[in-house]
Amino acid sequence: MKTLLLNKEDVGRLICMKEVIETVEEAYKAFNSGQVNQPPYTCIHLPPSGEIDFKISHSAANEIISMKASSGGFPNNPIDHGVPSGMGTVLLFDARSCALICVMDGSLLTGLRTGAAGAVSVKALARKNVKTVTSIGTGKQARMQIRAIHHVMKIEEIHAWDHHPENLARYKADIEGEFGIPVVMARSMQAAVEQAHILITTTRGKGALVEAAWIQPGTHIVAMGTDTYGKQEFEPEIFRGAKIVNDSIAQCIEKGETWHPLNRNIIRREDIHAELGEILLGKKPGRETDHEITIFDSTGMAIQDNTTAAKIYRNAIASQTGTTFEFIS
Amino acid sequence: MKTLLLNKEDVGRLICMKEVIETVEEAYKAFNSGQVNQPPYTCIHLPPSGEIDFKISHSAANEIISMKASSGGFPNNPIDHGVPSGMGTVLLFDARSCALICVMDGSLLTGLRTGAAGAVSVKALARKNVKTVTSIGTGKQARMQIRAIHHVMKIEEIHAWDHHPENLARYKADIEGEFGIPVVMARSMQAAVEQAHILITTTRGKGALVEAAWIQPGTHIVAMGTDTYGKQEFEPEIFRGAKIVNDSIAQCIEKGETWHPLNRNIIRREDIHAELGEILLGKKPGRETDHEITIFDSTGMAIQDNTTAAKIYRNAIASQTGTTFEFIS
Repeated sequence: MKTLLLNKEDVGRLICMKEVIETVEEAYKAFNSGQVNQPPYTCIHLPPSGEIDFKISHSAANEIISMKASSGGFPNNPIDHGVPSGMGTVLLFDARSCALICVMDGSLLTGLRTGAAGAVSVKALARKNVKTVTSIGTGKQARMQIRAIHHVMKIEEIHAWDHHPENLARYKADIEGEFGIPVVMARSMQAAVEQAHILITTTRGKGALVEAAWIQPGTHIVAMGTDTYGKQEFEPEIFRGAKIVNDSIAQCIEKGETWHPLNRNIIRREDIHAELGEILLGKKPGRETDHEITIFDSTGMAIQDNTTAAKIYRNAIASQTGTTFEFIS
Repeated sequence: MKTLLLNKEDVGRLICMKEVIETVEEAYKAFNSGQVNQPPYTCIHLPPSGEIDFKISHSAANEIISMKASSGGFPNNPIDHGVPSGMGTVLLFDARSCALICVMDGSLLTGLRTGAAGAVSVKALARKNVKTVTSIGTGKQARMQIRAIHHVMKIEEIHAWDHHPENLARYKADIEGEFGIPVVMARSMQAAVEQAHILITTTRGKGALVEAAWIQPGTHIVAMGTDTYGKQEFEPEIFRGAKIVNDSIAQCIEKGETWHPLNRNIIRREDIHAELGEILLGKKPGRETDHEITIFDSTGMAIQDNTTAAKIYRNAIASQTGTTFEFIS
């Protein structure tokens, strides 16, 4: 029995952002069609700041079981061990036999599928013909969001803000160089948010909050930074009266941005409009007016890893990329 | 960064039962020294009869994180897919960096470490100089128990029973051929149990129960078959007054044989004498008289996979066995 091995370079060559956006849509649709089994994930904390998470899912749609181990929070890794501060590994099993069909590096996967999630929400929930994107946060995922959203709309201007001016300047240089989209370095978070047609937050969820008074009517919010209890990016008042969409309601009310307004009784659970897959499947409406504020709160789901890694695997088979190894002969 | 790949043949050559018994002792001791993080495992059911389990553990003693995926219940695999009905894969991570150091076939691991668990319990709990072992069940794990216990005592005679006479005859031929130990094919389960100094049960936990009246004073019971809610091998009355030892009390009271007498109020939780690691560490006594009945109820722990796979890995490095692959260059 041959198992395909794919290294980081292989993975990077085997899929493009357009395909990731498609596989994340496929994931959300499968999730809201009752075709996904996605148990709570397992986290091992490794003090002082490290952790490794194991996220498992089964899709009856593609008959693949995926297990992604992803680590982070080891800043001394490059110097002490000669490896990155965070890494990932993905196993894929054929659900019909449980044969191990692929072991691939998973370093790129989380970034790609998280970026794509923002783009899928923009397609479903943002006003048509909007032009400006505001990015609160300027790290890797902030860039990935632009890379993905750039595929689904024409971005004419980006307003960006970061607590650290040097990070902001680097972001501006990189984004303008890669995409040719002008980046305005905002003088304050408020100034950036007030310009937003689409507002993306990708911070560590430990800094100043975006305030409700700054949000313009019609804004679509992509709230990506809060994926664990204890993180927060928004004044909870923002959720009052907004159209709230989650990737997984069960996850978001427990550890997403949506937890905060629920905890403060600003909204009730029934005020959550939908899971994104329900909108993609036409079970619930997306945006209905130009004035409403839409919020997509995402905590990330194992099924996104599943469908994206499965596509990488299929592309590898089709292009005869990778190495094989027989764990059982 | 190089990751070591070990196939099934490599694994089989890289460790002997004596070493597995040592690594399982190491596992139990680490578990009862507060050095183990072993979250609840994740199970994906694949109807009609298949499943795949993911068992994760971290040992602060060896600084290894292990993840074992093991599948079973696919009887048509050999014909339909050309692969075994159950398979396994183990990942090992260096806990200091979370680098993936090894991917090994895990097909042999569960059988080996489960067999070794029985032998460790015999060392700690059986009377010295006992001679006869009774085996209820004659499958793969029944043989593995003999293979392991054979390392820690001189077995002079085995009394075996199986519902299917042909399985029993095959077991007798195989055991006598491999170990030269005479096997008596019992005419009934009762006849086999009445001969036991050590009683091993390794059935699927769905058949007739061992009855309390059949157990002789001084017997050590190795109760391996019940590892999931819904399985049972013993009349619960057997637990009354016996010295009850679990691998993990948390697991055994939820899904081990120990659940049954608790559920029937035949014992209380305080009547569970110890976890096996507490006895190995000298924190609690093992057997204290020749007359008491000792019961070792085991549901299997991820830390056994961890210490055993870590030993296989160290042996591979020492003997330069296996293949390397760079998932990240």
